[in-house]
Amino acid sequence: MKGFAMLGLNKVGWIEKDKPVAGPLDAIVRPLAVSPCTSDVHTVYEGALGDIHDMILGHEAVGEVVEVGSLVKDFKPGDKVIVPAITPDHMDVFSQMGYHQHAEGMLGGWKFSASKDGVFGEYFHVNQADGNLALLPPEISIEDGTMLSDMVPTGFHGVDNAEVQFGETVAVIGIGPVGLMAVAGSNLRGAGRIFAVGSRQLCCDVAKSYGATDIINYKHGDISQQILEATKGKGVDKVIIAGGTVDTFGEALSIIRPAGIISNINYLGSGDYIKISREGWGLGMGHIKIVGGLMPGGRKNMEYLSNVLKYGKLDVSPLLTHKFNGFDHIEEALLLMKDKTADLIKPVVII
Amino acid sequence: MKGFAMLGLNKVGWIEKDKPVAGPLDAIVRPLAVSPCTSDVHTVYEGALGDIHDMILGHEAVGEVVEVGSLVKDFKPGDKVIVPAITPDHMDVFSQMGYHQHAEGMLGGWKFSASKDGVFGEYFHVNQADGNLALLPPEISIEDGTMLSDMVPTGFHGVDNAEVQFGETVAVIGIGPVGLMAVAGSNLRGAGRIFAVGSRQLCCDVAKSYGATDIINYKHGDISQQILEATKGKGVDKVIIAGGTVDTFGEALSIIRPAGIISNINYLGSGDYIKISREGWGLGMGHIKIVGGLMPGGRKNMEYLSNVLKYGKLDVSPLLTHKFNGFDHIEEALLLMKDKTADLIKPVVII
Amino acid sequence: MKGFAMLGLNKVGWIEKDKPVAGPLDAIVRPLAVSPCTSDVHTVYEGALGDIHDMILGHEAVGEVVEVGSLVKDFKPGDKVIVPAITPDHMDVFSQMGYHQHAEGMLGGWKFSASKDGVFGEYFHVNQADGNLALLPPEISIEDGTMLSDMVPTGFHGVDNAEVQFGETVAVIGIGPVGLMAVAGSNLRGAGRIFAVGSRQLCCDVAKSYGATDIINYKHGDISQQILEATKGKGVDKVIIAGGTVDTFGEALSIIRPAGIISNINYLGSGDYIKISREGWGLGMGHIKIVGGLMPGGRKNMEYLSNVLKYGKLDVSPLLTHKFNGFDHIEEALLLMKDKTADLIKPVVII
Amino acid sequence: MKGFAMLGLNKVGWIEKDKPVAGPLDAIVRPLAVSPCTSDVHTVYEGALGDIHDMILGHEAVGEVVEVGSLVKDFKPGDKVIVPAITPDHMDVFSQMGYHQHAEGMLGGWKFSASKDGVFGEYFHVNQADGNLALLPPEISIEDGTMLSDMVPTGFHGVDNAEVQFGETVAVIGIGPVGLMAVAGSNLRGAGRIFAVGSRQLCCDVAKSYGATDIINYKHGDISQQILEATKGKGVDKVIIAGGTVDTFGEALSIIRPAGIISNINYLGSGDYIKISREGWGLGMGHIKIVGGLMPGGRKNMEYLSNVLKYGKLDVSPLLTHKFNGFDHIEEALLLMKDKTADLIKPVVII
Repeated sequence: MKGFAMLGLNKVGWIEKDKPVAGPLDAIVRPLAVSPCTSDVHTVYEGALGDIHDMILGHEAVGEVVEVGSLVKDFKPGDKVIVPAITPDHMDVFSQMGYHQHAEGMLGGWKFSASKDGVFGEYFHVNQADGNLALLPPEISIEDGTMLSDMVPTGFHGVDNAEVQFGETVAVIGIGPVGLMAVAGSNLRGAGRIFAVGSRQLCCDVAKSYGATDIINYKHGDISQQILEATKGKGVDKVIIAGGTVDTFGEALSIIRPAGIISNINYLGSGDYIKISREGWGLGMGHIKIVGGLMPGGRKNMEYLSNVLKYGKLDVSPLLTHKFNGFDHIEEALLLMKDKTADLIKPVVII
Repeated sequence: MKGFAMLGLNKVGWIEKDKPVAGPLDAIVRPLAVSPCTSDVHTVYEGALGDIHDMILGHEAVGEVVEVGSLVKDFKPGDKVIVPAITPDHMDVFSQMGYHQHAEGMLGGWKFSASKDGVFGEYFHVNQADGNLALLPPEISIEDGTMLSDMVPTGFHGVDNAEVQFGETVAVIGIGPVGLMAVAGSNLRGAGRIFAVGSRQLCCDVAKSYGATDIINYKHGDISQQILEATKGKGVDKVIIAGGTVDTFGEALSIIRPAGIISNINYLGSGDYIKISREGWGLGMGHIKIVGGLMPGGRKNMEYLSNVLKYGKLDVSPLLTHKFNGFDHIEEALLLMKDKTADLIKPVVII
Repeated sequence: MKGFAMLGLNKVGWIEKDKPVAGPLDAIVRPLAVSPCTSDVHTVYEGALGDIHDMILGHEAVGEVVEVGSLVKDFKPGDKVIVPAITPDHMDVFSQMGYHQHAEGMLGGWKFSASKDGVFGEYFHVNQADGNLALLPPEISIEDGTMLSDMVPTGFHGVDNAEVQFGETVAVIGIGPVGLMAVAGSNLRGAGRIFAVGSRQLCCDVAKSYGATDIINYKHGDISQQILEATKGKGVDKVIIAGGTVDTFGEALSIIRPAGIISNINYLGSGDYIKISREGWGLGMGHIKIVGGLMPGGRKNMEYLSNVLKYGKLDVSPLLTHKFNGFDHIEEALLLMKDKTADLIKPVVII
Repeated sequence: MKGFAMLGLNKVGWIEKDKPVAGPLDAIVRPLAVSPCTSDVHTVYEGALGDIHDMILGHEAVGEVVEVGSLVKDFKPGDKVIVPAITPDHMDVFSQMGYHQHAEGMLGGWKFSASKDGVFGEYFHVNQADGNLALLPPEISIEDGTMLSDMVPTGFHGVDNAEVQFGETVAVIGIGPVGLMAVAGSNLRGAGRIFAVGSRQLCCDVAKSYGATDIINYKHGDISQQILEATKGKGVDKVIIAGGTVDTFGEALSIIRPAGIISNINYLGSGDYIKISREGWGLGMGHIKIVGGLMPGGRKNMEYLSNVLKYGKLDVSPLLTHKFNGFDHIEEALLLMKDKTADLIKPVVII
């Protein structure tokens, strides 16, 4: 079968591989729609996961089940399914602790386009199908469904980890697609004021449509200063970091109130250290919680998050700025994610 | 001064009392807008708190501070303030445990029209003003502000206690003003499907506007059966009880999934026992949590909840179906709450 | 192979069955030590699970792995393992929600001697071995290890659900082996005062050795009155119900403080309703949480709880009042659990 | 009256001040026993709080109430009381959020010997007496009681923030008196294996008596390496930092498992940044929570923590290695804390 792969550092292309085989618990799925992710760009062009060869890319997909293993109970060929980016081993001790992301080692739940072939092939393999797939509700289009693989759960996980409460003030730093979902998620969890920190006009507009009350543009001055002024020096209850670098934590700390939470969902691709100012952190006694986490995948999360779309609480279509038809457009879509034009949020490829 | 009071069981009327006096921590407030509550009806016409004489009624108000005690730091005469229904002693051990509602004894944080004169007087007394008042943001009208005293915090407390998560299915039983706020709160916390159980057309319409996805009318058959059918037997993740009787818990139990939560915010005015079916409760092992709680009041909650209105996340105006101008309309407004016409949700009296 | 089984209501005996077969994820285990449980008595002599025929009994065991399926990674024949009473399907949506007890339906994680043959056979079958077995640390004897199957996790689960905090006052009602573990667990979680409610001298003595500070004997008067007197009317922070009937909740409610938690771990075998007094429950507004739950099983819990024994924080040997040697003593041991002599806490059979 | 004060940087001595005056909510207390704290040393000899002049030192005391304000309800002259190091304004919004430590600004709940005169005077002032004092139970000696002001609550707060669960492996870095209380607290919350990281023989011995299972001495090699070896590379579930510097976080990160918690209770007196390794933190996605917080004070905590002593669950007497009799020994005791001899854990001065 054909697949669009990382051939090596800075090199992508089509390769031929054997069609994957389903073990007793697994499914083989044919993609119906896929979306490339900034992580794919990190992986190929920054070597974030090392110098990998001939690994099929992609981890956001809606697909059709074509084959299931002998022990699979709840899925059958022909089912349209949401495929989460994170497909852990649910029997692992970490899964039983509530952190299936780290089953089989830190970040071990992330398999597609990380430790095995991703979803940009004619077929792909899903481990523990009963635990990792979810039926796509007929109310959700296949292209919208791809946003449930990674964008929605990652953005919403940032909100969950920030423990956003009714009426709180939240700053979301970085409003690419994940940050926009963190804005929407904060809004959906009852935040009051929502600062969206970004600069691209399109993203700012979409952020507002998702509930941002204030747009903070770093081109208009220091972010911290703008937010502190707007809040009369009080700062914000929670910060969600969905972009930037290791240095973004310094900005987050400068705007957070005592006992606030800084919740990171940004994949930190470079830098040695996150630096936490001793004074800003209250000499170690300010109760400012710092946490960062990979999104939870698995069937349960896909089912619950799909309800948010199915019942009309969230419209992900504004994210999908570029739609392609046909498998062979994957390369074009991926390059879009790399070059990030002003009019881009996310591309989707319908197959 | 004049006040509209419970004179005795089943008897209300205007009385004269001395203007209240502020201790060092207290404030004296003049009401600008007030709203009568079903609790006032319970108190007067069902004797829920006993045979009380000459107690001024009312616990929902926006007012103007007219006097503050010597130790009050943050408020001064002239300030427009939101007055919560619950005004606890914040130094109490229960307050320090996070349950100021039960400071000075179970439900002891509820003082207005329960253990002291309420807000239907020319003036009323607020204990621990710095801890219990909140400035009314200029973006919120005084009539909308009255909904922050009790309706919003009670409805939202039901949601908080139900620990509603993204995409969950919630049933709200009873959609008077508090139940409607539970619907809105569930929606604002990211629920997916929301069943609103009620029958009055107006309330059903408003419930839909607040995010209810399904209206369940008991006149169309058994509630449980309707919900179980709609969910293909799965039931709901959470139930919020905002109306009914002690028997409503039986219905709640029949529709809740294992490990779900039943969250009561209904003041249970009569009946001896809530009965939990042993089998429905999983022989004692089903992890179905049953909790019921009085709303938290105090300044912090008023400030945070007012942000939800201030930043446009919630519009309470659909609740205010009847507006009166003038202090002497309080009686009329209260009787409306007693008689509950088809077109009523909440009356408000602007003074 | 031979197994000691429920033949029908009120009837037990030895039967012959085929040796169980391991699927790809499963293990076949030979018991090394087993302990009968009150639940077995309920099942056989009260028909709690219905009129079951020819089901091998038992769900508390330490064993030796004799065979593993092709996908089992972490266990091999010869391994000495702790077998939890609850062996769920970890891929189920409920497992992913943190409630594997209810995978495959309410209480569906309980399989041994409930929905499949138990551990009182020459061999028994363990589903999802990697997710459900744990190696027995060499520091723990096989007979002590059997207490990790059910007694320790059930007692400690009651403590976890009660959210016991440093210095709290806890009442444990019922001090059979599970209640004793709830006493020990409360003590190990930092409770201050611990009331143990029971009457058998041996159990009272062991309760004291596990940290109970006060013994309350119902033969000396009303339980509630004794506890309220001892606490000068304040009552207790938490109640753990580990014995009694559906009516025990009434006693629990009468001694709990506002915002306290009543945590049930007692299998309620009979009665129609648990009755919660409307007044005692604060008219629905007292924040008294009522929860009851089946113990969590699975590998993670076995590993963590075994650490409590391995590192000397808990000594379960006082529970094991009767030790038998030889498979054929199982009947005798089970009858002991039925007749409960004054000198019995738990019997164990070493095979 | 006389008080032992910081006169300026590096300078202490006796001064005369007016006896403090009680406002309506306050109490004036005469110390019965006091204990100097490392924080006093930081304040005086490292200028941690700036160049303060003539501030009476000390924040750990048991005392006798000599005067109360007109609004104080629960205390009267003659009462023996525990005085917490943290005495916040309980009406503050931060107190209502559950973080009274930060009432009136970050760390604003810490008043004694920080923003007002401390307890090393003939008399001292306690704000909001009803919310901040607790009666000393007769079962607790006055010298043991002083450990409830700061040592016990700080150590236990580290444990609470680490969310220690049954059977977890905890590393406590730094085993001075606060670290020892973190060891005891971890043990009391059901930890399994407890690594105590320290080097002084006395502290190691006491750590063992409080439940440490392994002593890790940095003099015997790299801490991380020792702990990783002992845990076969798995690391620990939780780290509590009770000593060291800003660089200690690097060591903590190197031994913590994915989704673990690093809980700091060490007052970080110097250094610019805490540095979190990007890789060790799972590229921002490892769910390793980092939190640090000042102990909660107030009456509720004093009452609950005193129960732990009163009911014999914790013996603080091993901490009190040096006892003095007489007010004028305060200087000697403070200098002991500065010089830290091998045989010192904490000095106490009985007055």
